[in-house]
Amino acid sequence: MSVSRRSFLGGAAAALGTLGSRVDVFAQSRNQAAQGGAGRPALDDYDSFAHLSSNENCWGPPESVMKAMNSAWKYSNRYGYPDANIVGEIAKHHGVKQENIMLTAGSGEVLDVVGTTYLMGNKKVLGVEPSYSTVYQHATSIKTTAIKLPLNQKDYRQDMAAMIKVANQRASEIGLVYLCNPNNPTGLIVTKQEVKQLLDGIPAGMPVLIDEAYHHFVDTPDYATSVPYVIEGRRVIVARTFSKIAALAGMRLGYAIAPAEMVQQMRPYAMSSINALVKHGGAAALKDTESQAKIKKMTIDLREKTSSDLRAYGYDVIPSQTNFFMVHIGREIQPVIDEFREKKVLVGRPFPPMTQHMRVSIGTADEMERFMKAFKEIFPAKAKTTAAI
Amino acid sequence: MSVSRRSFLGGAAAALGTLGSRVDVFAQSRNQAAQGGAGRPALDDYDSFAHLSSNENCWGPPESVMKAMNSAWKYSNRYGYPDANIVGEIAKHHGVKQENIMLTAGSGEVLDVVGTTYLMGNKKVLGVEPSYSTVYQHATSIKTTAIKLPLNQKDYRQDMAAMIKVANQRASEIGLVYLCNPNNPTGLIVTKQEVKQLLDGIPAGMPVLIDEAYHHFVDTPDYATSVPYVIEGRRVIVARTFSKIAALAGMRLGYAIAPAEMVQQMRPYAMSSINALVKHGGAAALKDTESQAKIKKMTIDLREKTSSDLRAYGYDVIPSQTNFFMVHIGREIQPVIDEFREKKVLVGRPFPPMTQHMRVSIGTADEMERFMKAFKEIFPAKAKTTAAI
Repeated sequence: MSVSRRSFLGGAAAALGTLGSRVDVFAQSRNQAAQGGAGRPALDDYDSFAHLSSNENCWGPPESVMKAMNSAWKYSNRYGYPDANIVGEIAKHHGVKQENIMLTAGSGEVLDVVGTTYLMGNKKVLGVEPSYSTVYQHATSIKTTAIKLPLNQKDYRQDMAAMIKVANQRASEIGLVYLCNPNNPTGLIVTKQEVKQLLDGIPAGMPVLIDEAYHHFVDTPDYATSVPYVIEGRRVIVARTFSKIAALAGMRLGYAIAPAEMVQQMRPYAMSSINALVKHGGAAALKDTESQAKIKKMTIDLREKTSSDLRAYGYDVIPSQTNFFMVHIGREIQPVIDEFREKKVLVGRPFPPMTQHMRVSIGTADEMERFMKAFKEIFPAKAKTTAAI
Repeated sequence: MSVSRRSFLGGAAAALGTLGSRVDVFAQSRNQAAQGGAGRPALDDYDSFAHLSSNENCWGPPESVMKAMNSAWKYSNRYGYPDANIVGEIAKHHGVKQENIMLTAGSGEVLDVVGTTYLMGNKKVLGVEPSYSTVYQHATSIKTTAIKLPLNQKDYRQDMAAMIKVANQRASEIGLVYLCNPNNPTGLIVTKQEVKQLLDGIPAGMPVLIDEAYHHFVDTPDYATSVPYVIEGRRVIVARTFSKIAALAGMRLGYAIAPAEMVQQMRPYAMSSINALVKHGGAAALKDTESQAKIKKMTIDLREKTSSDLRAYGYDVIPSQTNFFMVHIGREIQPVIDEFREKKVLVGRPFPPMTQHMRVSIGTADEMERFMKAFKEIFPAKAKTTAAI
């Protein structure tokens, strides 16, 4: 080991050394981000908000993941380096081959790449509205369009029969079916029977992108992952992310699981340009099922408590299976977002046509208390609802 | 601040705290990466090599950059966060507007996105061979081809007159001109006069991608960046990276500077999905010109010493302006790569048709000594050359 190399590692260690107490971590972050500059809130401003707008994992990565990421600093200047075998670990986790995995910088990259690959030549994407709109936006950006079906009026669930009907009637126009399961922003699942119904009912070979970003929060036997359909060889792409249960949104890691042939079709449009630290963090996260169970429980407990409080206050809440929920506020959401912001609580954006619902992400207990306090200041108590929906 | 949030930061701090000495950083990295798994060398194996194969910056990020990155851990679970105004800082650095910047995960993303955008519909890319082949490979992956002109036989320089001639003769086929300046793998610049000659000589409006990955190592007044052509409004895209002078290859940060209209054309195909830590690191790197000057000097000193030793030993070295150089070995490179590998020195891959040259990246003083020792074991001394080329 040369003097120069030592000097680099020494520098890194010195930098890390200054962060040896939790106070320092926080103070240094504060100072740094306070210089955030134009167009971004300064850190003091950032920290003053309850962040319930982006379905983030408020608890951050568990210690096992932080340790793994910090162990990889020495590769920060390298290209080919020991990467904790992240692709192999993901493949093993799902019981698929490495050729079935496309590693991406968050699952947003999967959505864009699938869109580019299967919508080229003005093919359309078929899905519901509201749903996670990245695929629809990408379709617009590459000059094609989406066929968006409404949710069931009664219970906000996705209507598989309607989807199958349109997929067959307009098969020649459609390049891709998009299914967000559980759905964002409603938090509702498509049952395992319904997924099968969809895959069996649409034209054979029509590509289906199933976005399982919130997979790890689901707590019902009615739901199942769609990875087995990939293993079966169906033209299904499952998108997963380390942004939610693993709390690595800012670090950027996700992946697609798909038949090898589809992975090959998609690769030219994927960057798969992944940060060294998060490769190590992701591999550690896959193994830390204990932390995931803890995050899941904390999330569900806080979600159910808040939902229950809102119902007791007289407002309908859609029963969610994710780390967010929707509450029916009975008036237009946009001005309400601003009222919450004034009370230092950030809530979700409008999801047309459900513009009288508010999407609320699960934050810490403290953040949820701040949310309920703000809610009660903004909305009057109403007669209690009788049903969950 | 809630207990939960504190607990997260405490966890982060605790993880960082274990890294308080340089021995620990190294030991922990070693243990982690030793678990690298199949398909990747275990860490002991990785560390046993002199890494002179990938034009990395062997010294790693300077302390200012490490500090900035470590200050941003608290955003590892977030989406919208204070990001050190990285796009604004880059724009300011170049005297352009933010609309002229496309932030990417390394400059490889720029190359792919430019390729996808301007080669769609089977347009061809025009450039020289050998050069950095990512753009040519991407052209192949999206089912089109490259028109590759040879370098000057005498001095390995890029022939602007030939490029202009072909660009005009085959204008209707060509979607993009690619110019790597300085060129990889030769390390030779295209002079500022030649760049102007090229831009003035090709058909008006033909997009030109100028890859300035090694910009910061150049030390001659004959060279200049092509950013002013972007400001002039020419259809020029300049690619830059934080992987080289800023030593952030593993962290993934780069950008394109281009007319706003071109940035808009490219955006749909870019992921721009960037790690939170490296946004802060990049902003710090832009400001740490002192460290960059130090890296540049160490690199040039070691390059010139090694080049001079090789010439004294009787081998021609192409006079480089980058953090790598090519030496003429007089026989086919592929088996030689293997011989060096056996001596625990990694050197560059073959760059057809220059398959009797070896590309060597600049490593630490220790690594360069190991390289020279291996070179002398593999190759006999020859009569001294009279010229630099």
